[in-house]
Amino acid sequence: MMASAKVVALRALNGRSPLCNGLFRGFRLNSTVSVRAYSANMSPPSKAVVYEQHGSPDQVTRLIELPPVEIKENDICVKMLAAPINPSDINRIEGCVYPVRPPLPAVGGYEGVGEVQSLGSAVKGLSPGDWVIPSPPSFGTWQTYVVKEESVWHKINKDVPLEFASTVTVNPLTALLMLEDFVKLNSGDAIVQNGSTSIVGQCIIQLAKLRGIHSINIIRDRAGAEDVKEKLKQLGADEVFTESQLEVKNVKSLLGALPEPALGFNCVGGNSASLILKFLRQGGTMVTYGGMAKKPITVSTSSFIFKDLTLRGFWLQKLMNSEKSQECRVMIDYLLGLMRDGKLKYEMELAPFDNFPVALDKALGKLGSHPKQILKF
Amino acid sequence: MMASAKVVALRALNGRSPLCNGLFRGFRLNSTVSVRAYSANMSPPSKAVVYEQHGSPDQVTRLIELPPVEIKENDICVKMLAAPINPSDINRIEGCVYPVRPPLPAVGGYEGVGEVQSLGSAVKGLSPGDWVIPSPPSFGTWQTYVVKEESVWHKINKDVPLEFASTVTVNPLTALLMLEDFVKLNSGDAIVQNGSTSIVGQCIIQLAKLRGIHSINIIRDRAGAEDVKEKLKQLGADEVFTESQLEVKNVKSLLGALPEPALGFNCVGGNSASLILKFLRQGGTMVTYGGMAKKPITVSTSSFIFKDLTLRGFWLQKLMNSEKSQECRVMIDYLLGLMRDGKLKYEMELAPFDNFPVALDKALGKLGSHPKQILKF
Repeated sequence: MMASAKVVALRALNGRSPLCNGLFRGFRLNSTVSVRAYSANMSPPSKAVVYEQHGSPDQVTRLIELPPVEIKENDICVKMLAAPINPSDINRIEGCVYPVRPPLPAVGGYEGVGEVQSLGSAVKGLSPGDWVIPSPPSFGTWQTYVVKEESVWHKINKDVPLEFASTVTVNPLTALLMLEDFVKLNSGDAIVQNGSTSIVGQCIIQLAKLRGIHSINIIRDRAGAEDVKEKLKQLGADEVFTESQLEVKNVKSLLGALPEPALGFNCVGGNSASLILKFLRQGGTMVTYGGMAKKPITVSTSSFIFKDLTLRGFWLQKLMNSEKSQECRVMIDYLLGLMRDGKLKYEMELAPFDNFPVALDKALGKLGSHPKQILKF
Repeated sequence: MMASAKVVALRALNGRSPLCNGLFRGFRLNSTVSVRAYSANMSPPSKAVVYEQHGSPDQVTRLIELPPVEIKENDICVKMLAAPINPSDINRIEGCVYPVRPPLPAVGGYEGVGEVQSLGSAVKGLSPGDWVIPSPPSFGTWQTYVVKEESVWHKINKDVPLEFASTVTVNPLTALLMLEDFVKLNSGDAIVQNGSTSIVGQCIIQLAKLRGIHSINIIRDRAGAEDVKEKLKQLGADEVFTESQLEVKNVKSLLGALPEPALGFNCVGGNSASLILKFLRQGGTMVTYGGMAKKPITVSTSSFIFKDLTLRGFWLQKLMNSEKSQECRVMIDYLLGLMRDGKLKYEMELAPFDNFPVALDKALGKLGSHPKQILKF
């Protein structure tokens, strides 16, 4: 009885919004399939990274084959080409951070790029061979075939390297939305950020530079910090400081000719967030989008009253599922254009999907320092 | 040489914006007075609470007589009638909190009400006997005669008790601006605040009630807490909790039928600010306008990212010296009307100006619990 229920549930994992009602639809689907097994338009079986409970990703994920699912009249069956392992994917599998999680069992992954394999009978806007990304991104991209409704898929040009197409949404779009949505910045203004070596951080540096906006970047103290600074400056960073360099009475004395920043981005928390607050100008805004240090943000009363700072947060998942979702697709096309032209870049490492456990270990930092891992199907 | 400079400086204290250039104007004034001592329109000498250095107010303030000053063509000489001792006045004398302070020596006090005594030759909008308040409020109301330009003074109706007229700006206007400027609230919405027994807190309760907005109030644990709760409920509070009552896993379970608040006001900091954050609804805003606990505000990363909270600050002094100053005068008239009609009230105690040291000790809490002290001239 239990085993049978699990098989049915796993069927549902092959696409079809497991977020909302995957298990329920799985049961329905099962009975439907048995009645019209020969008439239905079916997907191929899908090889998928599945987890049945939350925990350490290297303990709870398994690479298994999911059975075919029906491709309904408005569905697209997409053959995945590439999908990244993002830190947020790890957090979701761990299950202790994100308030919105797919029901278990679930397929890992949240973004990626694929090629249209086959169409439901009512699909008009896409053709086999088109490249598509899920936009808004959605759960379950770590599998070879994904079946979801046409509206989920955004067609993109094929002139972008696969690894960039597969990663355009979660990190680069976060960087662009944060630069544009909180404070009206003009050429000549400045921003400050921590976690500057992250992909979002690198995208912020490059997107700011393209707009004539100066970036002041904070990195944690580490071996090879000078090399990291040089690399970020080659991307367009105006200043890069290690946290220990900022243990001075007045950090603003380090700004030289740069203006005091009006906007700050925090993905670390703790003392690193406080450094951003010190840099911000009167009336400035700090946006928190991550908490890598797992420490809260501490703010003095006078920062609010006399310095008039505003503190806010950013969550891509909520924003992209709002009325901004169409606007986001336009921004994604803009970002893909920059990637095609070599104006927006970051390091990645392609990993064969069948070697998922090794790629995961690299993403978890268990095998030393590696660039972002991109699963190639 | 030093003594002479001090006398000249003290002359300047009798009004005339010591904030910006009081000492400089003092020097000019001195030479002018000596040249045309008989032709000039002069104020009476002014009895004033003066401090020549920052420190504990009961140590550094003195009640002295300042010499007459010239009433220039656009000036008004106002005979002060009443002025409160606000906590912010204490902070300014202590000198360790406020970034904008009058140059020393300075006259204490920042708001109050007076009666027009005499006019400069070019004044058109005011007549002797009119009641006026400085708006924006300005330094130096703890003295018997204040000379400032006509534009500083806002004429008010005489149908309001003196003590209310003297206190309308700093606390009630703060309450009204905070209710109106940050989040669009509708009848049926809710706010949450700490420091609810403060005058601002009591005004927020009453102004919210008038708008059909529910108030959730946090007070510190104290003897007689039940009496305090009852008093605040009589003012219109929907709920009043002591901090220890809120040591529960889910504070929202205490809300009953009240909606989750969209807006919170923090004048305490530390744990009391965290309680406000717990009450706020998804996407809510907390405004900090004081820090009575002298402890910072600590916020989790997830409060920003997933709960989408916004944290801001409020500083009356900055706002009233902005383009909103005229709008503030309209709001002051509205508040005075509510006071006249008994719809906005709080406890005060009148204190003869000559007994300033006793009133100050009461304001400092050295003589047990007393209502706000209002100096009566």
